[in-house]
Amino acid sequence: MKNLKKDMQAIIQTILPKISPDNTVINGLRDFQLPKGNLYLVAVGKAAYTMALKAEQLLHGHIKDGIVCTKYGHVKNEIPGIRCYEGGHPLVDENGLWATKQILKMTENLQEDDLVLFLLSGGGSALFEDPLISLEELIDINAQLLRSKADIKEINTIRKRLSKVKGGKFAEHCQPAQVYTIVLSDILNDPIDMIASGPTAADQSTYEHAEQIVNKYHLPLSNEAKRCLQIPTIKTVKNSKICIGAGASILAQVVKEACEDLGYHSAILTDQLDCEAREAGRFMGAMAKYNQNCNKKIAYIIAGETTVNVCGKGKGGRNQEMALTAASYLDGMDNVAFFAFGSDGTDGPTDAAGGYVDGNTLNDLNKQGISIEKALIDNDSYHALAKCDGLIITGPTGTNINDVAVLLICEKNNK
Amino acid sequence: MKNLKKDMQAIIQTILPKISPDNTVINGLRDFQLPKGNLYLVAVGKAAYTMALKAEQLLHGHIKDGIVCTKYGHVKNEIPGIRCYEGGHPLVDENGLWATKQILKMTENLQEDDLVLFLLSGGGSALFEDPLISLEELIDINAQLLRSKADIKEINTIRKRLSKVKGGKFAEHCQPAQVYTIVLSDILNDPIDMIASGPTAADQSTYEHAEQIVNKYHLPLSNEAKRCLQIPTIKTVKNSKICIGAGASILAQVVKEACEDLGYHSAILTDQLDCEAREAGRFMGAMAKYNQNCNKKIAYIIAGETTVNVCGKGKGGRNQEMALTAASYLDGMDNVAFFAFGSDGTDGPTDAAGGYVDGNTLNDLNKQGISIEKALIDNDSYHALAKCDGLIITGPTGTNINDVAVLLICEKNNK
Repeated sequence: MKNLKKDMQAIIQTILPKISPDNTVINGLRDFQLPKGNLYLVAVGKAAYTMALKAEQLLHGHIKDGIVCTKYGHVKNEIPGIRCYEGGHPLVDENGLWATKQILKMTENLQEDDLVLFLLSGGGSALFEDPLISLEELIDINAQLLRSKADIKEINTIRKRLSKVKGGKFAEHCQPAQVYTIVLSDILNDPIDMIASGPTAADQSTYEHAEQIVNKYHLPLSNEAKRCLQIPTIKTVKNSKICIGAGASILAQVVKEACEDLGYHSAILTDQLDCEAREAGRFMGAMAKYNQNCNKKIAYIIAGETTVNVCGKGKGGRNQEMALTAASYLDGMDNVAFFAFGSDGTDGPTDAAGGYVDGNTLNDLNKQGISIEKALIDNDSYHALAKCDGLIITGPTGTNINDVAVLLICEKNNK
Repeated sequence: MKNLKKDMQAIIQTILPKISPDNTVINGLRDFQLPKGNLYLVAVGKAAYTMALKAEQLLHGHIKDGIVCTKYGHVKNEIPGIRCYEGGHPLVDENGLWATKQILKMTENLQEDDLVLFLLSGGGSALFEDPLISLEELIDINAQLLRSKADIKEINTIRKRLSKVKGGKFAEHCQPAQVYTIVLSDILNDPIDMIASGPTAADQSTYEHAEQIVNKYHLPLSNEAKRCLQIPTIKTVKNSKICIGAGASILAQVVKEACEDLGYHSAILTDQLDCEAREAGRFMGAMAKYNQNCNKKIAYIIAGETTVNVCGKGKGGRNQEMALTAASYLDGMDNVAFFAFGSDGTDGPTDAAGGYVDGNTLNDLNKQGISIEKALIDNDSYHALAKCDGLIITGPTGTNINDVAVLLICEKNNK
């Protein structure tokens, strides 16, 4: 069992650098060609500072001007030749709007040979905004949509129509220059029109879509907002090229490679899992039961973002719940382990990234009088896992691209 | 898409005969050796009649005496040389007890060279019983356990201690003759001590187990019942050999073979799935999204028995809910289908065995104004699937070994 835990630690250590904002930029710049004209750098989102820092290092001396807009507290130092600003997240604020105005100023009147390198990460919807309506109404609509349990597609369909930069409008603004976007994606399946509401991607939504959403959630809108919703969105963006530098599919892929390096025959089941966390734990537990007597080392990988229906008052997160649930299934197996963690190093409101369980976990907890069933009812996976050395603690990793979970199975008689 | 549906139909048609009671007996008799002494046949459970009929055909002229005890309405005709009885199920009744007495009489005073061929299927717990307590109290305790949501392990731990035939006691009764049991298993992972409460299998439970269950569910017991719970169970059964003729693992295996015969690269993920039906549907849907662009034919197979938390007033079953949930994920894919069905031909209180969905299903339902979300909230999968030709109707299949579901994926450009 010790070896399985070591394998987990090795896998996490191997993959974190590969999905860092740094590496996202390195990946993204692999096919990048310097423009004949001027190169401008724009970085928005939670990872904007780190991404811009790396890009400046790699393109040193080639950038004519650049602006970063990230979340408060995320600018760590100066970047030569780059203006770094901070703004509100998750709620837009005046500072974010001001920084966006500077970006729009820098990128107006560009020439055909110019190029804007656009580094985009999660949080960009709030941090990169120039609204068509008042800031007050924008904040109010955003808050209502978030409260109403509207999904990210619905929220972004509305946001794009109320903005001067979202839904491909930033790329249009940069015309006739080219825009090259490198994305650190935090949305499953990397939908380029959804990440930060797609400032450089076309938008296929219709007014009818937008109207349905307004009606579904009973959004009260000003006449100005109603008018904005009717403006047709941009259906083709010719001057934009988008590259996913990191995302859930890359996360799953690097985990697969790390498992293979340790000798596991590895398979990705999905990179878009979005079911209930504990039910995914039961599914993977049932897979463990089926595979426990196999005669080779196997790793099954699932990436995505599961959900938790919080009813209890305990402490935990979706990855910890998934792992703790699987523990009952793994009970007594001496060649199987399961772990799940968030790539940002934070799972729910805890200091843990996720959880690790194996064939000893249930027994270990039982001995201490801790019931997995009761812990799950109270959404208290954190304290249960803490008691059996099952918390995965990485600290903030600086990146944010969903979660990944792995079922590790060794040959029956060769742990 | 037509081809995918045809593939589903071919798979179901191929596998049903392979998991029939007939084939279970054929499988089970493959390694069977006729005894030097007398051969007796005992068949109990819901499939007892069909299994005995097949065994008599195969062993014609070799059976000295035989008894069947099955559920009311399940004896279809006479079997030469075999006495066929019917009794109560799921609740034990006088007729079942009487038939069991006849079986015990037939199998007492056997010789060392004699052999009892014991054909066991689901329902045997109620249909094969000689209680140590009064029938009234037995019925009462069973009913309380069923109501209390005790799991099958807990129920059987109590049942065995109150019985003269369960928990290996029937095999002990047949000593010094040998007992050869062929099982048509309806419990995941084929636990031979659990199926029909294991009349020919050892029981490792302790008095403490039994006491915990009594306390957990606050079972009121007579002094007689309390005394019975304390009697040690049989820890080794030397004269018994047990063969699983059919069960969920065989179900998954024959489905895999059927998929391979159609050219699908096939993998069994688990044969013991027991999570929530709709969450399994979301898991498989997320797998479809990940695999939709693959360049070969793939089939992913899951077998088991999922659960449904019924809150609505609609009509449906666990397999139909699983399929309908997956439909949202498959939307628009022209090379993917998913289906789930119960091997007994009955899914929930409906005349359907399960459900089939593909990339057209969601659109098909939307056009008719039917919302999958709403149908699921009302547990009304049956009516939604009926509207899009998504019900799988097989009629009663005569067998009963859990459910199976399959995700079929074709090459992207070769449906």
